[in-house]
Amino acid sequence: MTPFTQLDAAHIGALKQLASEVITGNAIHEDYFHDELAGKKYPPEAVVRPRSTAEVSAVLKYANDHNIPVTPRGQGTGLVGGSVSLYGGIMLDMTAMNRILEIDRENLTMTVEPGVLLMEIPPAIQGYGLFYPPDPGEKSASIGGNISTNAGGMRAVKYGVTSDYVRALEVVLADGRVMELGGKVAKNSSGYNLLQLIVGSEGTLAVVTKAILKLIPLPQKSVSLLVPFPTLAQAIGTVPEIIKSRSVPTAVEFMEKAVILAAEEFLGRPYPDKSADAYLLLTFDGASLGEIEKAYDEAAQICLAHGAVDVLISNSPERNEAIWKARGAFLEAIKSSTTEMDECDVVVPRPLIAEFITFSASLEAKFGIRIRSFGHAGDGNLHIYILRDDLPEAEWHDKLEQVFAALYGKAAEMGGQVSGEHGIGYVKRPYLADSRGKDQLELMAAVKHAFDPKGILNPGKVF
Amino acid sequence: MTPFTQLDAAHIGALKQLASEVITGNAIHEDYFHDELAGKKYPPEAVVRPRSTAEVSAVLKYANDHNIPVTPRGQGTGLVGGSVSLYGGIMLDMTAMNRILEIDRENLTMTVEPGVLLMEIPPAIQGYGLFYPPDPGEKSASIGGNISTNAGGMRAVKYGVTSDYVRALEVVLADGRVMELGGKVAKNSSGYNLLQLIVGSEGTLAVVTKAILKLIPLPQKSVSLLVPFPTLAQAIGTVPEIIKSRSVPTAVEFMEKAVILAAEEFLGRPYPDKSADAYLLLTFDGASLGEIEKAYDEAAQICLAHGAVDVLISNSPERNEAIWKARGAFLEAIKSSTTEMDECDVVVPRPLIAEFITFSASLEAKFGIRIRSFGHAGDGNLHIYILRDDLPEAEWHDKLEQVFAALYGKAAEMGGQVSGEHGIGYVKRPYLADSRGKDQLELMAAVKHAFDPKGILNPGKVF
Repeated sequence: MTPFTQLDAAHIGALKQLASEVITGNAIHEDYFHDELAGKKYPPEAVVRPRSTAEVSAVLKYANDHNIPVTPRGQGTGLVGGSVSLYGGIMLDMTAMNRILEIDRENLTMTVEPGVLLMEIPPAIQGYGLFYPPDPGEKSASIGGNISTNAGGMRAVKYGVTSDYVRALEVVLADGRVMELGGKVAKNSSGYNLLQLIVGSEGTLAVVTKAILKLIPLPQKSVSLLVPFPTLAQAIGTVPEIIKSRSVPTAVEFMEKAVILAAEEFLGRPYPDKSADAYLLLTFDGASLGEIEKAYDEAAQICLAHGAVDVLISNSPERNEAIWKARGAFLEAIKSSTTEMDECDVVVPRPLIAEFITFSASLEAKFGIRIRSFGHAGDGNLHIYILRDDLPEAEWHDKLEQVFAALYGKAAEMGGQVSGEHGIGYVKRPYLADSRGKDQLELMAAVKHAFDPKGILNPGKVF
Repeated sequence: MTPFTQLDAAHIGALKQLASEVITGNAIHEDYFHDELAGKKYPPEAVVRPRSTAEVSAVLKYANDHNIPVTPRGQGTGLVGGSVSLYGGIMLDMTAMNRILEIDRENLTMTVEPGVLLMEIPPAIQGYGLFYPPDPGEKSASIGGNISTNAGGMRAVKYGVTSDYVRALEVVLADGRVMELGGKVAKNSSGYNLLQLIVGSEGTLAVVTKAILKLIPLPQKSVSLLVPFPTLAQAIGTVPEIIKSRSVPTAVEFMEKAVILAAEEFLGRPYPDKSADAYLLLTFDGASLGEIEKAYDEAAQICLAHGAVDVLISNSPERNEAIWKARGAFLEAIKSSTTEMDECDVVVPRPLIAEFITFSASLEAKFGIRIRSFGHAGDGNLHIYILRDDLPEAEWHDKLEQVFAALYGKAAEMGGQVSGEHGIGYVKRPYLADSRGKDQLELMAAVKHAFDPKGILNPGKVF
């Protein structure tokens, strides 16, 4: 890697000529020093907030010419330090490029700038009867951030993840060249799939300045089942049976009582049910109630046959909202229950989730540390939070390392992957290296070099 | 590119030590000299038919050490010369690695070797109530070939293309290293998406030796509509209206009378209807008839409102088969109606298909050459065949070049792509270069260099 240049007054002056908004020194808000998981603080030397692709291109060209590192950032809601300026330099805050440019009813696409928030998409398209399926828990994330981590979310069981809905991207390369990848086309066998190489590359290959997203017809009906079980093992053990029955739920989440109680406290409102130790939360959606009735009825029967205490069926938007709102608050609720935390976002083959959760729960006693988990039982993607509480610094880091080693080791043994949807950032680099091995890391480095020979784009991330 | 080595007796002897079957000299069948589209003949110096990943690895390592070009090949059913040995060397015939290794009902996956034929998949999984949605017309293609071109097929409208169903690959790199990409997991944000870089790379980055394919529950009911229209423009013009109505057909094909007549002659059996000049053929599938009734009824009404002469509804497997069998024979039927042909496999945004077809039809008169087309109206992917008939060699090539220039130029103007599903091979290289431009081609070349520094894997293909 070329040694990076520190920004001086001349560089700042030049950047102010190239971009609408440049923030420096004490005017840089501390929020820019870290992401949602917090951890160590890394202040950028300048925050640049471009208003157009042309500005992004000009800033990148300048940075590349002068060996200045550039860290693209959306809302900073990541959990692995992906949008943190490890090497100072320029933080490229993309949030001011936040226009919805087009909704195309004939191609079923929408064209957005990267700063559009996930929560802004449904109101923009529902009136057209259209639907953007990816549904990560963090609705205030930007779509650019979702693309850069290949965010997954709740509905991956039926609908897939962000990458499945990216039809085209406009990106700016490290040297400022602008490139269009993909198009409003439903098929493509025209050379290497550079488009999907950018998705999930965490801002290390190019900066996304525009995206064409695929939409689908809005399902008219949605039914949720909240299913209490005596134990978590029984709840999760039921999921493979539901999948094997060949019904297709939109979402299958699992939750423990401890997490529900934390969410209740955090939201200040009671949850519809907290009689049991563990829950499955399932959703079925479709064009009509008739279409999904058989499927959710069958799933309910399977749950009851596998030890469920009850099946609470919710088919009104209000009840669905009450059930799902708590689910959306889990992360914040757990976070507010402790002093500091770190997370493990592994994905394992679906039938092995119960075994993995049992294993991770056993680490609580073994290491004497509080561990909370929730996650996407339907797609094998787990969120396991290790909580510091009142542990002293050194002990916390020591235990964290041992717990992570155990969790990632177990996932690897099961044929799992390090990250299901949060990405690698800088925090998870050692685990990615262990998991994918030297050969794959070398290939990724060579690909990185092809896109960004000077290594200015989000240095220190992924590998 | 390193100059390639010609095979001598010592090389052949060495290869015979490394692989179960090595064919040389006159024993090499002429079929290996070309693919389905024929064209110029390129004989390989040796055909190697490995039986295991270890053999593939050993052969590639040897070839890489000795600068011998290697052309991977499945059933040779490609249409762009992708599996042709432009530089002699080794043809790596993967058809003997053709075992279905596993059907996993809990993860809804199947694991196959690359030589498994597309037509072998449904009978292997139907008994489990499972379904592999990609449905390219050529059922005798190998799954390895489908992966290497990212084959699309009829059902892409609803279900997507091959890349959407590749969960994991075992691949062998040019230097013989074996690599596992992806896994039996439903989400993945763990470093660059090398998996999807291999899909569609036409054997230029690595050789696929195993694939884990995603399956879905088998739709229990399927209804097809054969809809005659007075003109092709009316037929195709109706498609955007169906899409806009937000019903989701599984497939939407268009057909002209001339192509139906050719298929009748080729198959020796009459088509259910040939009263009209143009047809749409739609399929809807789902878990029950009730689920799809409203959708196909609405589509039928839209067709009638846009000038359809009639709507023939077919809901028995026998009638569906009669309608779709002809569709499957179009390519062979057109081919057998002329002396030689070449094809254009562009994909354009769906609402522009009618305009593109009208344009391509206008070239028949303009250049005095017979042009036939059919294709996937629902996803914008067209197959346009230019027929040589009795044109002399020079005139044929001259006209072909002009017609192609016009077609690809028009597609580019519309925001389309050079290939929807057949790939680039060597035949379409100039059009890919025009379409994606110098910057993207340079990036692809750099990616190629990262995977295959000596350039031995399928040289002369894609770019």
